[in-house]
Amino acid sequence: MTRGFSFEVSSRDGRARRGLITTTHGTVPTPAFMPVGTRASVKSLDPSEVRQSGASILLGNTYHLMLRPGEELIRRAGGLARFMAWDGPTLTDSGGFQVFSLPALRKVTDRGVVFASHIDGARVELTPERAVEIQAALGSDIAMVLDVCPPGLAPRDEVAAAMDRTTAWAKRQVSLERPEGQAQFGIVQGSIHEDLRMRHLDELKELPFDGMALGGLSVGEPIEDMYRIFQAVVPHMPESLPRYVMGVGTPKDLLEGIENGVDMFDCVMPTRNARNGQAFLRGGRINIKQAQYTEDPRPLEPGCTCPCCARFERRYLRHLFNVKEMLVSRLITLHNLHHFGALTAGARSAISDGRFSQFKESWLTPREESITS
Amino acid sequence: MTRGFSFEVSSRDGRARRGLITTTHGTVPTPAFMPVGTRASVKSLDPSEVRQSGASILLGNTYHLMLRPGEELIRRAGGLARFMAWDGPTLTDSGGFQVFSLPALRKVTDRGVVFASHIDGARVELTPERAVEIQAALGSDIAMVLDVCPPGLAPRDEVAAAMDRTTAWAKRQVSLERPEGQAQFGIVQGSIHEDLRMRHLDELKELPFDGMALGGLSVGEPIEDMYRIFQAVVPHMPESLPRYVMGVGTPKDLLEGIENGVDMFDCVMPTRNARNGQAFLRGGRINIKQAQYTEDPRPLEPGCTCPCCARFERRYLRHLFNVKEMLVSRLITLHNLHHFGALTAGARSAISDGRFSQFKESWLTPREESITS
Repeated sequence: MTRGFSFEVSSRDGRARRGLITTTHGTVPTPAFMPVGTRASVKSLDPSEVRQSGASILLGNTYHLMLRPGEELIRRAGGLARFMAWDGPTLTDSGGFQVFSLPALRKVTDRGVVFASHIDGARVELTPERAVEIQAALGSDIAMVLDVCPPGLAPRDEVAAAMDRTTAWAKRQVSLERPEGQAQFGIVQGSIHEDLRMRHLDELKELPFDGMALGGLSVGEPIEDMYRIFQAVVPHMPESLPRYVMGVGTPKDLLEGIENGVDMFDCVMPTRNARNGQAFLRGGRINIKQAQYTEDPRPLEPGCTCPCCARFERRYLRHLFNVKEMLVSRLITLHNLHHFGALTAGARSAISDGRFSQFKESWLTPREESITS
Repeated sequence: MTRGFSFEVSSRDGRARRGLITTTHGTVPTPAFMPVGTRASVKSLDPSEVRQSGASILLGNTYHLMLRPGEELIRRAGGLARFMAWDGPTLTDSGGFQVFSLPALRKVTDRGVVFASHIDGARVELTPERAVEIQAALGSDIAMVLDVCPPGLAPRDEVAAAMDRTTAWAKRQVSLERPEGQAQFGIVQGSIHEDLRMRHLDELKELPFDGMALGGLSVGEPIEDMYRIFQAVVPHMPESLPRYVMGVGTPKDLLEGIENGVDMFDCVMPTRNARNGQAFLRGGRINIKQAQYTEDPRPLEPGCTCPCCARFERRYLRHLFNVKEMLVSRLITLHNLHHFGALTAGARSAISDGRFSQFKESWLTPREESITS
């Protein structure tokens, strides 16, 4: 394991586990949800607000940051965390997911990927070696390997080919130099095929990774397939390493993952949906733009202790949304991140107390005062 | 004077004066700058941040609020301050300035103004009586009379006609019922003509206003004309009432006004310019989008104690602006409002200490470390 990086499981409840990741920039109690700071900003929020929501680690996007402002500028600014004034650990993805989602993807070879920048169309190459180099410049605490991400419902042979190349690339990446204290996680592909997932996991287990991720989920497959993969694969991921499900998901997805032993998640959902007016509540969601909230004096979620619910009423938030005042994005984002932060904090306590399944059920049950009208 | 509203001058330095306005929702140390919360939000900021910038009173726009969400909704929500979770006094303009700026202004008669809403083109009427009624529903601490605002460089006879109608409307408005504790300010027109200003002031002095404002400034006239009006007119405004210059202005404008005895200002400049990347510094401004800040590790203004300068570097702010992250609007708005808050706080201390002219000069002198590159 990388020096300066460690992971300890402190308690278990069934398959669910509570633990602590230690990095040179701070600790991450798990299960953890990582807010996404795509372009070195969790959209609309001050990093101190992100911290107060209960988050202890942020995700930054290699693809976006390599293009603007460029990883070398961030290196000179002291690394991603310092650049954005976040006083905690960061994780960077490899850029793979974004690049493979680009309509302007040009060519994938054993060497790497060539694509056209979404900004100016410039030809850019991303190789396994470059992915390691860029993340070294970004100075994240956890770097992800560059993987091949097939489309959500790709045929089985395409999934298998992506796995093979991902393994070959992973082997090239584990031996490259990284900054002191920077951990490296492998990414298991295999889509919704249990046998492919298990085969790929076995291949990656051979490599000296500091953590193991499941990629290629929540990309269009039926939700039951994702839960089936959680159940079938997560228990076989290395016990001693953090287990991370990438790009997932809803509160229910998190609870299903945690129940099966997942330690880390990231998703743009709480932040992106907030900007569209959607707030996460226990057991459901509301969209503040709806007319039924026009005169509603309740907070987004009665009983919620977030800075939005403590002071602002639905009728005010709806007005802000209606007149396109940017404050509303920020206030609902605060609430949503608090919701995800409270979910993971609650899960950690519940695991220690051996009552995770009750916690899960209660989280998925609406508070009565939120929905009566 | 309206019960629950009072104004006391506590010290003087030349024409400049320091004082305190007391309202039923809190006090306003003067000279004061009022941030503009057009649609019941100081764009991008949480009201607690506005307070921390040194502001003690906010301005809300009758024109915008009467259209959306409508003044009756705000009345039912407990008034403007409570609706937007601002725990302090508010001032509402009369809607006149916006309505007279509309390209879809239909008709002005002795009765009032008819215009087409900028939202859906609906025909809306604003009369002196409606202006009082709407502001009563908004529940502001200070209501402004509806005045006639001629274009910035209107000919002298048009200015005089606007004054006459403004006086006639003022007479209708002072006798109408207002909520308990709501003060009412008159508005002196007269453009850049000293004799017209003085004549209009004399007319309005006869009415029982709680404060007196200068309208129709900073609307396109040469800056020297505005300063000339400050010098010629402000000393003749009632000594015992707060004096308010509407829609003004730059830091230099504020200092010129304060020097001549103005107590209150409002302007969208610190907030609007922030959204365009412009930051106010002692003795100047910078625009963060400029390439020279690409690798600049300094805060917006070295030595500034605002929450933006305490933590964020120019190179990060420039990156955020460049990639259109909304956090940058918020951070520069915070800085700019802090700049205006610190200016008025500094002016108040300087007036008490009899050193206002030194303070004015020092505020207009750049800090060396801000500009050397």
